[in-house]
Amino acid sequence: MPRQLKLGAFLMATGHHVAAWRHPDVPADAGLDFAHYKHLAQIAEAAKFDALFIADSLAAPIGDIASRMARSEHFEPLTLLSALSVVTERIGLIATATTSYNEPYHVARKFASLEHLSGGRSGWNLVTSDNAAEAQNFGRDQHIGHADRYSRAREFHRVVTGLWDSWEDDAFVRDKLGGTYYQPEKVHVLDHVGEHFRVKGPLSVARSPQGQPVIVQAGSSEAGRELAAETAEVVFTAQTSLAGAQAFYADLKGRLGRYGRSTDSLKIMPGVFVVVGRTESEAQEKYETFQQLVEPEVGVALLGRMLGNFDLSKYPLHGPLPELPLTESGQQSRQALLTELAGRENLSLAELGRKIAGGRGHYSVIGTAQQIADRLQEWFENGAADGFNVLVPHLPGGLEDFASEVVPELQRRGLFRTEYEGRTLRENLGLRRPGNRFV
Amino acid sequence: MPRQLKLGAFLMATGHHVAAWRHPDVPADAGLDFAHYKHLAQIAEAAKFDALFIADSLAAPIGDIASRMARSEHFEPLTLLSALSVVTERIGLIATATTSYNEPYHVARKFASLEHLSGGRSGWNLVTSDNAAEAQNFGRDQHIGHADRYSRAREFHRVVTGLWDSWEDDAFVRDKLGGTYYQPEKVHVLDHVGEHFRVKGPLSVARSPQGQPVIVQAGSSEAGRELAAETAEVVFTAQTSLAGAQAFYADLKGRLGRYGRSTDSLKIMPGVFVVVGRTESEAQEKYETFQQLVEPEVGVALLGRMLGNFDLSKYPLHGPLPELPLTESGQQSRQALLTELAGRENLSLAELGRKIAGGRGHYSVIGTAQQIADRLQEWFENGAADGFNVLVPHLPGGLEDFASEVVPELQRRGLFRTEYEGRTLRENLGLRRPGNRFV
Repeated sequence: MPRQLKLGAFLMATGHHVAAWRHPDVPADAGLDFAHYKHLAQIAEAAKFDALFIADSLAAPIGDIASRMARSEHFEPLTLLSALSVVTERIGLIATATTSYNEPYHVARKFASLEHLSGGRSGWNLVTSDNAAEAQNFGRDQHIGHADRYSRAREFHRVVTGLWDSWEDDAFVRDKLGGTYYQPEKVHVLDHVGEHFRVKGPLSVARSPQGQPVIVQAGSSEAGRELAAETAEVVFTAQTSLAGAQAFYADLKGRLGRYGRSTDSLKIMPGVFVVVGRTESEAQEKYETFQQLVEPEVGVALLGRMLGNFDLSKYPLHGPLPELPLTESGQQSRQALLTELAGRENLSLAELGRKIAGGRGHYSVIGTAQQIADRLQEWFENGAADGFNVLVPHLPGGLEDFASEVVPELQRRGLFRTEYEGRTLRENLGLRRPGNRFV
Repeated sequence: MPRQLKLGAFLMATGHHVAAWRHPDVPADAGLDFAHYKHLAQIAEAAKFDALFIADSLAAPIGDIASRMARSEHFEPLTLLSALSVVTERIGLIATATTSYNEPYHVARKFASLEHLSGGRSGWNLVTSDNAAEAQNFGRDQHIGHADRYSRAREFHRVVTGLWDSWEDDAFVRDKLGGTYYQPEKVHVLDHVGEHFRVKGPLSVARSPQGQPVIVQAGSSEAGRELAAETAEVVFTAQTSLAGAQAFYADLKGRLGRYGRSTDSLKIMPGVFVVVGRTESEAQEKYETFQQLVEPEVGVALLGRMLGNFDLSKYPLHGPLPELPLTESGQQSRQALLTELAGRENLSLAELGRKIAGGRGHYSVIGTAQQIADRLQEWFENGAADGFNVLVPHLPGGLEDFASEVVPELQRRGLFRTEYEGRTLRENLGLRRPGNRFV
């Protein structure tokens, strides 16, 4: 069986383009419309995507500019994916949950519950919060610093995965005649005592069909890469060029050996923002309809958010990107990437804001299905990606386009499956089922 | 329209009887079987129950005795009810979530999300933890004391309901042409600063079809009653006699006035454990098949748990209930009730353990549909109940029996609906939609 690429569908209410909600074809109230998400999930599953991917934030943006964006109302990911588990059968369900403002017992239990609801299709996108506003919803004035967030994240991962191993696979015998529900020697008390957490265990959920949910990560800073090398099974990353993606891929895969891991135990899936047309000019025109809906102030506000929660409204719209301090609260890797881009292309604040309004710093391909497949194939076959997290400008339209145009082209080339390999997310991703650490 | 009673279906995996899982008709692995819960939900909805009710615990019991009980594996309630929202249309979905080991922002958001998934059918059973083992899963050696738990619960309620009012009902205008997603003056920052919590807000979920999820409570101690009088809209309570239930009912309804509330703004629903037979002796025989499956040590362990997490295994099985300290960690009201019962009937430890193995201290009726309806009618018409939370020995059988035998009898008497009054849980319970505190 030749190596094939993996696909995630990044679902963000109205779509990835900041102005998508204003487009006539887009349901503006998609954020809290379950029927919308059900439709998206079924499109993605029919197209044999590996997984749905749901991002998250623990704070609602407010203020004049925020009121012109569609990010203030959305489902909580674990409740949404639990509901979607009922209307899908094969596709993976990846929810984001932060380690910065959560307790590991809750996170372990909710994912274990989703894992059983879905028959082994869940994944946990383990993140550190990049939004200082979240701190204020959890009793803190200040956001936890970058280094502390990663220290906490590493320990959080140890606790959660430890709790998932509370029960051996054959612990529950449920012997009605003998009266033995489980074998007492097959439950394991974690008794974790660490710098950030003390958690006794065990979890009140049996081990799952996959053994454990798939661990997904998205951080690309030095600390993020090292944590991913140690613990992640899928990495979602923002890359803007083939060369950059190759360097990231080589770097991250190169770190696996020191944790005793094989290179195929971690799938690297860069985000790719795609706009599909029957001709290249049709794709460009489609893209422009979204670009024209971007108000400069909204683009700049999005930019400030992506650079690390900076308020850029005090700088001239048509002036250059100001020098900003390396922030503790934002995504350090994204900040470096955007600063470099502004300098290289000599963009004004407004231009940079408009530039990232769709792809938000991800690799973008605007063209025909053939052109898009060419780029994906190039990255896939040249050490830049094991697959892609697909970002579309608007939903459901952009996903429908990708499913009906690009997926068949990838299948014709033998680059993508025509049927699911298995029933669990691990089986479809080609990841092993982890053993139980206590056995 | 004459006053009609309300019914909740208390769903506990294999059933309420501690030995239910050993019965040949019961799927022993029900705790993590979504198809099982889907079946239960659809039975209850076809019978026009007001709501499903899911209890919870944040710790898994372990040890030799625990290994002979079926309580160590179960779904997390919010993920389970999110999934069940997809396969039901009218029935309410009430999940338990403790205020002792949770953060209000998470709880507010998950229920708000369930509320939108279900189209306004959610309820929050606000509890304080009665299980000291939970503390050890959340960084504490000791359980939070009783008074502190209630102080925390009251503040937790204020924060959660405040967050639910973050957005006015008409805040989201989603004006595509003008580019206004929401009206900035219609979002409200809570800025809560209290003894236990500091939470800024707003929530990232719009106000819901019901305005807010229904607030349910189950504590019956002095502190529990006072909190319920202030904040609850449904109270689930354990009562063993008509007289006791009448006293509780009068006491709790009598407290509402001091909070400016009308008596019908709070529905009191005692638990009732029912075993249905075509004849009284058939019902008794059915009950006995479960009773005979109770090992004495298991009954006593359950008793210890209900008295406040005491280990009673060191006391003689056939001796009396020992004098126990009034515990900080258990359910104070349940402890008083069971101590009184043991004294009144002069029961040994093993006998008391067996006695509570099915109803667990709730009012029990074992008989024909007519006999059961007689008792429910008596309580309902004599100031003891506005409805009942129905506990059955085994699932799905016990619920099927109640739905097919008792519900039609209640309907014939005009005591129970034959069709849902509305689409939201509030509409069916006859509770008003709360206004927004900020308006």
